[in-house]
Amino acid sequence: MPIDPIRYVTRVDLDKPGDQQPQVHNRWHPDIPCSETIKPGEVVKVECLDWTGNQIKNTDTADDILNVDLSRIHYLSGPFNIDGAEPGDVLVVEIKDVQPLERQPWGYCGVFHKTNGGGFLDKFYPECAKAIFDFEGIHATSRHLPHVKFTGLIHPGIIGTAPSAEILKEWNERETKLVNEIQKDYETSVANLPLELNAHSGSATGELAAKIAKEGARTIPGRPENGGNCDIKNLSRGSKVYLPVHVMGAKLSLGDIHYSQGSAEITYCGAVECCGLITIKTSLIKGGVEESSLKSPIYIPGDLQNHYGPSRYLTFEGFSVDEDGNQKYLCATTAFRQACIRAIEYLRRFGYNDYQIYMLLSSAPIENEIAGIVDVPNACTTLSVPMDIFDFDIRPEAEIIKRDMKNCALVSNAKHEIIYKFK
Amino acid sequence: MPIDPIRYVTRVDLDKPGDQQPQVHNRWHPDIPCSETIKPGEVVKVECLDWTGNQIKNTDTADDILNVDLSRIHYLSGPFNIDGAEPGDVLVVEIKDVQPLERQPWGYCGVFHKTNGGGFLDKFYPECAKAIFDFEGIHATSRHLPHVKFTGLIHPGIIGTAPSAEILKEWNERETKLVNEIQKDYETSVANLPLELNAHSGSATGELAAKIAKEGARTIPGRPENGGNCDIKNLSRGSKVYLPVHVMGAKLSLGDIHYSQGSAEITYCGAVECCGLITIKTSLIKGGVEESSLKSPIYIPGDLQNHYGPSRYLTFEGFSVDEDGNQKYLCATTAFRQACIRAIEYLRRFGYNDYQIYMLLSSAPIENEIAGIVDVPNACTTLSVPMDIFDFDIRPEAEIIKRDMKNCALVSNAKHEIIYKFK
Amino acid sequence: MPIDPIRYVTRVDLDKPGDQQPQVHNRWHPDIPCSETIKPGEVVKVECLDWTGNQIKNTDTADDILNVDLSRIHYLSGPFNIDGAEPGDVLVVEIKDVQPLERQPWGYCGVFHKTNGGGFLDKFYPECAKAIFDFEGIHATSRHLPHVKFTGLIHPGIIGTAPSAEILKEWNERETKLVNEIQKDYETSVANLPLELNAHSGSATGELAAKIAKEGARTIPGRPENGGNCDIKNLSRGSKVYLPVHVMGAKLSLGDIHYSQGSAEITYCGAVECCGLITIKTSLIKGGVEESSLKSPIYIPGDLQNHYGPSRYLTFEGFSVDEDGNQKYLCATTAFRQACIRAIEYLRRFGYNDYQIYMLLSSAPIENEIAGIVDVPNACTTLSVPMDIFDFDIRPEAEIIKRDMKNCALVSNAKHEIIYKFK
Amino acid sequence: MPIDPIRYVTRVDLDKPGDQQPQVHNRWHPDIPCSETIKPGEVVKVECLDWTGNQIKNTDTADDILNVDLSRIHYLSGPFNIDGAEPGDVLVVEIKDVQPLERQPWGYCGVFHKTNGGGFLDKFYPECAKAIFDFEGIHATSRHLPHVKFTGLIHPGIIGTAPSAEILKEWNERETKLVNEIQKDYETSVANLPLELNAHSGSATGELAAKIAKEGARTIPGRPENGGNCDIKNLSRGSKVYLPVHVMGAKLSLGDIHYSQGSAEITYCGAVECCGLITIKTSLIKGGVEESSLKSPIYIPGDLQNHYGPSRYLTFEGFSVDEDGNQKYLCATTAFRQACIRAIEYLRRFGYNDYQIYMLLSSAPIENEIAGIVDVPNACTTLSVPMDIFDFDIRPEAEIIKRDMKNCALVSNAKHEIIYKFK
Repeated sequence: MPIDPIRYVTRVDLDKPGDQQPQVHNRWHPDIPCSETIKPGEVVKVECLDWTGNQIKNTDTADDILNVDLSRIHYLSGPFNIDGAEPGDVLVVEIKDVQPLERQPWGYCGVFHKTNGGGFLDKFYPECAKAIFDFEGIHATSRHLPHVKFTGLIHPGIIGTAPSAEILKEWNERETKLVNEIQKDYETSVANLPLELNAHSGSATGELAAKIAKEGARTIPGRPENGGNCDIKNLSRGSKVYLPVHVMGAKLSLGDIHYSQGSAEITYCGAVECCGLITIKTSLIKGGVEESSLKSPIYIPGDLQNHYGPSRYLTFEGFSVDEDGNQKYLCATTAFRQACIRAIEYLRRFGYNDYQIYMLLSSAPIENEIAGIVDVPNACTTLSVPMDIFDFDIRPEAEIIKRDMKNCALVSNAKHEIIYKFK
Repeated sequence: MPIDPIRYVTRVDLDKPGDQQPQVHNRWHPDIPCSETIKPGEVVKVECLDWTGNQIKNTDTADDILNVDLSRIHYLSGPFNIDGAEPGDVLVVEIKDVQPLERQPWGYCGVFHKTNGGGFLDKFYPECAKAIFDFEGIHATSRHLPHVKFTGLIHPGIIGTAPSAEILKEWNERETKLVNEIQKDYETSVANLPLELNAHSGSATGELAAKIAKEGARTIPGRPENGGNCDIKNLSRGSKVYLPVHVMGAKLSLGDIHYSQGSAEITYCGAVECCGLITIKTSLIKGGVEESSLKSPIYIPGDLQNHYGPSRYLTFEGFSVDEDGNQKYLCATTAFRQACIRAIEYLRRFGYNDYQIYMLLSSAPIENEIAGIVDVPNACTTLSVPMDIFDFDIRPEAEIIKRDMKNCALVSNAKHEIIYKFK
Repeated sequence: MPIDPIRYVTRVDLDKPGDQQPQVHNRWHPDIPCSETIKPGEVVKVECLDWTGNQIKNTDTADDILNVDLSRIHYLSGPFNIDGAEPGDVLVVEIKDVQPLERQPWGYCGVFHKTNGGGFLDKFYPECAKAIFDFEGIHATSRHLPHVKFTGLIHPGIIGTAPSAEILKEWNERETKLVNEIQKDYETSVANLPLELNAHSGSATGELAAKIAKEGARTIPGRPENGGNCDIKNLSRGSKVYLPVHVMGAKLSLGDIHYSQGSAEITYCGAVECCGLITIKTSLIKGGVEESSLKSPIYIPGDLQNHYGPSRYLTFEGFSVDEDGNQKYLCATTAFRQACIRAIEYLRRFGYNDYQIYMLLSSAPIENEIAGIVDVPNACTTLSVPMDIFDFDIRPEAEIIKRDMKNCALVSNAKHEIIYKFK
Repeated sequence: MPIDPIRYVTRVDLDKPGDQQPQVHNRWHPDIPCSETIKPGEVVKVECLDWTGNQIKNTDTADDILNVDLSRIHYLSGPFNIDGAEPGDVLVVEIKDVQPLERQPWGYCGVFHKTNGGGFLDKFYPECAKAIFDFEGIHATSRHLPHVKFTGLIHPGIIGTAPSAEILKEWNERETKLVNEIQKDYETSVANLPLELNAHSGSATGELAAKIAKEGARTIPGRPENGGNCDIKNLSRGSKVYLPVHVMGAKLSLGDIHYSQGSAEITYCGAVECCGLITIKTSLIKGGVEESSLKSPIYIPGDLQNHYGPSRYLTFEGFSVDEDGNQKYLCATTAFRQACIRAIEYLRRFGYNDYQIYMLLSSAPIENEIAGIVDVPNACTTLSVPMDIFDFDIRPEAEIIKRDMKNCALVSNAKHEIIYKFK
């Protein structure tokens, strides 16, 4: 009984732009042609491009980060026709493995310019930065973040089913409404509406491609109806995700590999981004959506996760009083921002600059939680840094030895400050 | 060498109202007289009242929840004079143990009426409910939540140092400003300002007591400057918390014991609330606030935590599209509310009603996280239910057997719905 | 509904010899009178003496260890009549909690003299030593083992049901046979046969007491038929143990509290021994012995265990080549002895002496395993030391700073070597 | 900065016998020529054959197991010259990753015939059996062991440095002595002495090859001086092992990939055996052997291990009373054998036969420990079965549903019993 290697349903080319590869696409739309069919029960392998489609290079400047073209991102592998899937079914996807591509053993974390993508702390850190991570098997290190080494909890940032036409319409309407109402108050985009420029609809051509480009939802946000770009770091190897099916064949797409990510992925280009290889197995729960009241994806994590013991985390608290001293009302987003700021201020004492720490908090296996959401007016959140990723003791009682922490990659001839003065 | 038992610095009386006990207090103020002095390095025991000062009874109705007097809560043990502590120091408190009081082996979770306290989901669940938990050593069970048993990660909801006069002033100003600006838009209190009624300033009397009653900050919210009511479930046995010192002697207070709590404590009276006994040991990092940039507490959890393995959690995703279909912008609070709703809808299938599930999600060792905060416009959060607290299989693929799940305690003659129809 | 505190079925007196307390006993025999009846489903508390019945004191000499009377040990609480238990049933005991007695917040580890008890390494360490541990809530420290702190995985060393007359006969026969065959080859006792001296049969008197004293099995070994002195450190809080029932009422006994113990408990007086309080709940699986083929106890550990993450253990390997270079055949005992020796030799570099390390390996939360038992002729075992119990870095690559490690308690005017020269 | 993929220092051919591949060898000897040089700090990849050199096939009979040629095993990759390594140094090897070979996504567990290899329980199970495991990413399942799925803790069974001539001499002498003394009492080999037949000394030829064949130590046992075949399941991804260096260049060899293994690997061909790919990085601690008293390897596990939570293990106890009722003296090997027997008897109730269970206990992530080694005359050991690898509830209180458990692969026309009647 000769046993064949596992079938690849997608291969990607790292030397060719994503939009020249018909087995990937960068919009959500029910009409994108399926790239392959997968039978329930079959184990298959899916290669994936990195989320920028190879725009970022292994260099020591952040010029590529500055110039990144955000209309050309999220080239997802698929969509896959899951044999027998019908609207109303639950599609169960077991993520059997995720690996970086052997032919590219590195990844990157970036800070986008505030005018071109930004991030969670772009008010303080509007400039660009980059850190390259080298993959030594399960361990990542970075010449731009010395004295740190961690095991990646590798995962796809994006996994989702295709929306139905009705759902797609609802997405576009509600996001347009948001833009209309609040965009005027923000310097950066509050939502990305359909954009024909650089839409890539896989193997679609002609009128179909034009329709998809015009209507297709952008891939940036995760959405309740289909999952998508959830960026859940624990949706890693061995996880099982339950997705609602909205169209015939489910049309499963996935990609945006993260070698590692801190919960919340704060810099936006915020994981250790890379290309990679996912192994999946699917099954169907016929008619399961109604029975399970499944309006949004649910998942069960795998049993193979790096972990350090509960006592190995230095944990920062953040409350919903913003950085200017204004009291907010039960705002977990504000509270979490404060926890991030507290961690940045603290970690400076070891010689890192703010951009380095910002990327560290975004890409290393950082945990967070909403600890309290009812003690009016303050939400309380925490951000937990695993102490064992450093090769020195970071506890408050430890003796401080200043080390040469070098620098992250910055834009050529960058002149900006790398330490922000918080009040 | 006869060895004495560990010294008690506070004993409480479970049969007397909190405000008749001078070793406890229910406001934050720099002038509350110290109840005891503790030397750094000394291990001491502190008894604590439950947060309502014994207002809630072990019964099968929620009438006491309905009638709870929220001006008479959070009777904290202390404040303790930490020998040698000065402003600018870091007070390190090791939580050496937390136990329920042997003389009262039970606790409760409640849902307050929307007009008297409310909770995170009071829009859907405005009525009252209660669940009594029996403590069998480390295990809690509830006759109001059948087929569930869990180990409590017992902790003090509140631990904090006294504010300086300046900090107290800032608190009162910023919270007053909030009330002035937004209270008009809310049905429930957005913040609780100083209130003379039922203020209890420990052993203070006369003018001093009047001053404290007038100025003292309420204990409901945790605050960045001193910690306080953070409700961090993992700040449990073995944890070490680093608190900024603002006044001579630090004036440490603590209380609000939670036998168990789900992260976020969503029902507000939301943990398994109980009276208890805390063992602590303190130390000082002289001048540590500046050196560590310590603007808010940080902590390191202990190594004794109940845990089930990463793969034993059924995890619900929530996005910042609210329950009416409105798109919010990166609002983690909205996203987390959706995750809660998803979990409630799902768990109904086993026969629980919404009030039961609401309390379960609030009191059992539920985890959550902000998974993504940058994928505009959707924040993505998760809520994770440990599957092993149920004595049956709750996975989507499991066969459903309807069980008699009885009911939680409701108000006498309650007529309201116990299942909410979400759109 | 007033709720009573949990019922105590045993209280002990720390100031009175064990044999003056009728609620405890120190032999296994079917006829020891029951001290109390416990109903299945009832939660009860059981106080227990330390295993030596208060012979060891909190002092800085090991004279009490030298003079310990080993005929006066293991005063077990019980036996308890479990209502309705019959031979052939499985008695399920949930260990709901274990605590040290509040009135004695300390414990001890000892090394017995080779001529009076000995231990696993008495060939190298024939002399006496002692370490006193202070209990600060969940943390233990010792003035005799500086720079170490750990969380105790507290448990009863002994839990078992009474043997039937037939089983008792079998025990005595097979152990007598062993003594007859091999005692001549050993300097220390290979088994302890029934001994009338200091036998304590609880409340039995007269002829019954005499019969029990004459026939009763000693409590030193765990035995397959009833469990007994298994010294399984993970049989801690939250565990559920399944015991075969051999007599009417099961006659459950328990005791020998260990605040902490390293797996294998190598010094023999080897845990952090203490008196304590156990909370239990029982149930019965009627006729379960046959259905489950239950010839020896099985158990499911609890979910509340201290842990450090898999990567926080420095692990020593040991093989079945003995300390004189002799090749043994698949002998796990020899292999494990070598792993212990390797750990002792390694840990000396930090300034500890061998007796200190011997007790540390015996009492701290040390793990071990039989890694391989088939690679003839070598069994391979491992011994894992949690690195986080030390307040300094013990990895081979860490810089060595000699610290003042003081000494353990020794016999007054001790003159013996405290470092053994292995070949 | 183009980044090259990681360098392979060994490639293997799955279609050619091991002894035709000069980059592998199957003896320990100081003179085996190095196959490649590795610089400290360099990350390299090493392909490895399965331990039988491709003798076992993916079939449904155990004929290949019956006929296995045990003189043709353990074709190790290497030896590698570690640049700069000298006797007395410590060679630190970080196991950066271990993967099965993509081109062969399956492995096997076997029970050898008692007359040709045998195993830990060959007294009861003298016949042959086999189970094939299919690899779906991190999950293994077997058509020969239905209703079981587990995550492999993949690792090399063998990693070691070359012995010096003196050490080699010592090995051969002490193992010869054992054979001379006790072989007469055993039916199976108690040790495997040097054997010229099928010795494979890598690229050595002529006289050198003859010398190695004559003197070279067999690879079956792990040995204290150099590690070797330790079969430590947790020496997996992310581990760091410290090996003594005995010859110039260290001459590191490794292989014998186990996709998964139960601690102790009881069937002997006992892991999920497979070919694979290891990624390593080395460093040296110059002169470290003396400073660390490193007589045997030590290691620190990685932080990426599958785990289920402490309460998810059904644990069987075993004591040193053998299966015929004979009392042994502190024999951990006997005690562990009893724990294995108890687990086999218990697991039968679900429909598995003994050979299936024997292989399950050997290959799945089973834990064990020596719980007590001092309670004369009984050692107590435990064997812990992770309950979550079954898709049904295996607890004693669970309802038993008989399932079709099929059968493992047996020898063609096998007629032997598959259930052993223990007394």
